[in-house]
Amino acid sequence: MTAQGLLTLSCEDRPGIVAEVAGTLSREGANILEAQQFGDEETGRFFLRVVFAGDLSAVRGAFAPVAERFSMDWTVRDPSVPARVLILVSKFDHCLIDLLYRQRIGELKMDVVAIASNHPKDALAHSLADDVPFHHLPVTAATKEKQEAQIRTLIEETGAELVVLARYMQILSDEMAAYLAGRCINIHHSFLPGFKGARPYHQAHARGVKMIGATAHYVTGDLDEGPILAQDVEPITHADSPGALIAKGRDIERRVLARAVQAHLEGRAFLNGSKTVVFSD
Amino acid sequence: MTAQGLLTLSCEDRPGIVAEVAGTLSREGANILEAQQFGDEETGRFFLRVVFAGDLSAVRGAFAPVAERFSMDWTVRDPSVPARVLILVSKFDHCLIDLLYRQRIGELKMDVVAIASNHPKDALAHSLADDVPFHHLPVTAATKEKQEAQIRTLIEETGAELVVLARYMQILSDEMAAYLAGRCINIHHSFLPGFKGARPYHQAHARGVKMIGATAHYVTGDLDEGPILAQDVEPITHADSPGALIAKGRDIERRVLARAVQAHLEGRAFLNGSKTVVFSD
Amino acid sequence: MTAQGLLTLSCEDRPGIVAEVAGTLSREGANILEAQQFGDEETGRFFLRVVFAGDLSAVRGAFAPVAERFSMDWTVRDPSVPARVLILVSKFDHCLIDLLYRQRIGELKMDVVAIASNHPKDALAHSLADDVPFHHLPVTAATKEKQEAQIRTLIEETGAELVVLARYMQILSDEMAAYLAGRCINIHHSFLPGFKGARPYHQAHARGVKMIGATAHYVTGDLDEGPILAQDVEPITHADSPGALIAKGRDIERRVLARAVQAHLEGRAFLNGSKTVVFSD
Amino acid sequence: MTAQGLLTLSCEDRPGIVAEVAGTLSREGANILEAQQFGDEETGRFFLRVVFAGDLSAVRGAFAPVAERFSMDWTVRDPSVPARVLILVSKFDHCLIDLLYRQRIGELKMDVVAIASNHPKDALAHSLADDVPFHHLPVTAATKEKQEAQIRTLIEETGAELVVLARYMQILSDEMAAYLAGRCINIHHSFLPGFKGARPYHQAHARGVKMIGATAHYVTGDLDEGPILAQDVEPITHADSPGALIAKGRDIERRVLARAVQAHLEGRAFLNGSKTVVFSD
Repeated sequence: MTAQGLLTLSCEDRPGIVAEVAGTLSREGANILEAQQFGDEETGRFFLRVVFAGDLSAVRGAFAPVAERFSMDWTVRDPSVPARVLILVSKFDHCLIDLLYRQRIGELKMDVVAIASNHPKDALAHSLADDVPFHHLPVTAATKEKQEAQIRTLIEETGAELVVLARYMQILSDEMAAYLAGRCINIHHSFLPGFKGARPYHQAHARGVKMIGATAHYVTGDLDEGPILAQDVEPITHADSPGALIAKGRDIERRVLARAVQAHLEGRAFLNGSKTVVFSD
Repeated sequence: MTAQGLLTLSCEDRPGIVAEVAGTLSREGANILEAQQFGDEETGRFFLRVVFAGDLSAVRGAFAPVAERFSMDWTVRDPSVPARVLILVSKFDHCLIDLLYRQRIGELKMDVVAIASNHPKDALAHSLADDVPFHHLPVTAATKEKQEAQIRTLIEETGAELVVLARYMQILSDEMAAYLAGRCINIHHSFLPGFKGARPYHQAHARGVKMIGATAHYVTGDLDEGPILAQDVEPITHADSPGALIAKGRDIERRVLARAVQAHLEGRAFLNGSKTVVFSD
Repeated sequence: MTAQGLLTLSCEDRPGIVAEVAGTLSREGANILEAQQFGDEETGRFFLRVVFAGDLSAVRGAFAPVAERFSMDWTVRDPSVPARVLILVSKFDHCLIDLLYRQRIGELKMDVVAIASNHPKDALAHSLADDVPFHHLPVTAATKEKQEAQIRTLIEETGAELVVLARYMQILSDEMAAYLAGRCINIHHSFLPGFKGARPYHQAHARGVKMIGATAHYVTGDLDEGPILAQDVEPITHADSPGALIAKGRDIERRVLARAVQAHLEGRAFLNGSKTVVFSD
Repeated sequence: MTAQGLLTLSCEDRPGIVAEVAGTLSREGANILEAQQFGDEETGRFFLRVVFAGDLSAVRGAFAPVAERFSMDWTVRDPSVPARVLILVSKFDHCLIDLLYRQRIGELKMDVVAIASNHPKDALAHSLADDVPFHHLPVTAATKEKQEAQIRTLIEETGAELVVLARYMQILSDEMAAYLAGRCINIHHSFLPGFKGARPYHQAHARGVKMIGATAHYVTGDLDEGPILAQDVEPITHADSPGALIAKGRDIERRVLARAVQAHLEGRAFLNGSKTVVFSD
């Protein structure tokens, strides 16, 4: 069986891109298996994702001058190689456990290189499998700078390509957020832009909404304003207490975060200014 | 077949209410067919809806002293008698047409006693059936007071018990909102509390959310802050233009508004401070 | 503004199709605005839909030899030209009214050239606008052959490209189904393959399912086995009577049928053996 | 704080039941906190669930003669006492892990007294916490009778009140199914009644449906015909392979099974002939 490659690119939209890309692949004997594209009329930006059967090195080599000519942001990579992922968590571990489980059964193609938490390991509800290194990195207002430096070191030492905030209840400094831009996904436990800030389920209960939701987004300086990757909701009623909303919310959070992480890992998610392009799976 | 009655009540919660109500009905030979109740721990308020088979006058008479004792807000009525409804609309008539159609096939038990619009009848996309009186009540900033007085007159002359703002794109004056409090339902074309104010679909597009929604609520002075009756959403993608959002939104708006109006007509909706209690159908 | 064209094709899958198509369009100065593709590994069939800005005649001319070479089923057409549609209906007109309304506000790009029913016009709940010709074509077991011949004549005289069975409660003869194959969409009021045959909501009630649905499909000889275009469901409870299911079902039916008709009209739906390929909107 | 009690009952429907129950509770000084009821017009059966604050023994004592008079099936119990649950599983452990996690964080009020599988413990993807006894009970056609006897012994020794088939891929004998009737919940990986039998996701793929689902039901002799407790679905497309359906299905299965188990544990689920009554949470 021929090797598979994944080509993703974005560039200024102009005529002939698809012809050029498809022609290049064809000349290298690569066959297109999947292709998804989007041209954003507002930003004038074009996005393309292609899965092909063919020789990666050959395609990469042939594609470089094309990419140069169109000033593309691009990657050609082997989609079967799992990405290295660091997961940050606080006390609530439903998203963490869910991500680990999906990784184990092969649903999420990633290597979880480390888990870090501002709480000790035994604060988690679930007894973790021992094969993922766990780092307890406590944090206070006074030690935030130092703790974030520890996280950076962890990222660099593990070679983590993606950082997932799986209900990590700390606000990142602007510097840290900037450092992580484009490679860090957060789950916010509300249907943004409704109920920004703290205790969103209590806010939702107080407002009397009839549905609650969760939002996964790329991290930027402004925590609740990052480009949205995935959202979902569930109906609630007047009879749901804040505690019931939190319980229902857990289900939404874990599936929304998993969906966003999967889109990122599969090269289906692109930053597009303050928004995203997310091709369907 | 025995006549059916609908009893709805709310009062301060305290022990023995259900026993008292059920006992009263039983003594009058009335049989409970459906019953739904809710005690709000926060507000200490109790809500009850009972459908019974039995004699309305007898139940009403026997129930009066009970209601007096518990300081209840209550009604006993014949659920087969349709409510009188006034619909206000501007140019977009998808909600209007939907409500009229549901009334015709018996889904909504109401008499539409009049339709009023700030635009002439031929501004509507759909040619209306001729049997519902249409009132063209144009409005400008200068004539708002006078126009709202015309609406009041219309409500009083037609005996309208419920006013539905079916995409009526005018902001009501505080006086008018207060006048209509508890008997006027509006459809807002966003998933509140996100995207209050004008052009919510454009706001949603600019923010890059992955779902859009609509919200039906009782009208209060603050148009986007009224007690919410029903909400729903649909998924969207990066490829949806504002125009596509508006088209998808039409489907959500009409089903959310219909659901809210139906809950009101069937005595399943109660005001509970700034929130609502809506028993399921 | 440059004219837009819509190219749809299917053919045996093999390397180089996208490169060939994109290259041809590029050489004719046409710019790809949208493109969706799918290769079915099981059937070995490839499907492509391209919206382009460019000259239709030039593209059509240049594309013909390509299509010949790859043995493609293909069309190049102007997506702004509405398709001619015949709607068949019986007594229940919720789908009919919904389709007509969506056409009027521009959501469905079609010309409804005629409506035909086995019941007289006044059997419909809604008073129809007068501008669509209505044909009363009563049918009995004895006259079915003759009545279907009348429908054929109607299709031929009106040049209808698509026939929509909008709750047309008659079973077509095999000959008629074959005649309409690939250009006729039916709405079945169940979530197929559950509850085939008559009175599906009563079947669903008897079985005690917790969700009901509707299915839009292309018509083939076996009415409940046609290739599925769209499906949707809604939750129900033990308290829903068959009548309540029918009422809830109306909402599902009309949105599912509208979605299927829209996919067909926009060239997003392809037959793929006993299944379909439906590109997202 | 006063103790809470949970009263559930079903009986032949007749006038005065609610008055009698509410009066009895009131006379014992118990206050109704929640009440849900349903009278099935077809079967003539009445179902009631009441959560009350009050003395359990006193209520139980006072209620016995009432229950006698109305020939009620009834229980009065302390809802804070977790039920004893046995989980049966084969190789796929996503439902098992999900149930255990929900138990740990308090979402499901149950004691998992044992896990049994026809595969050894290391066949599971997830390393289980050590605190739940795991029983490897291999089975072949020849040993089925003996293995089911082992399961019965396990149920009796652990005092399990509920048995959950969490993707237990074995067909129970008629005797075993009868033995477990009304206290055993199975998750079937299709949207019943569609795709009964083996490999339902492959069946769904072959049929070309646009949504897949899962069904949780009480076990009866006919495995795919048991009274349905909960169902849910998700949209799929032509591009989803059987493997993709299986992956999407896992999410549906675990939430549907958890919902059904929760309804049972909370006394919200009742058998009603071949159907169920499930009061909302």
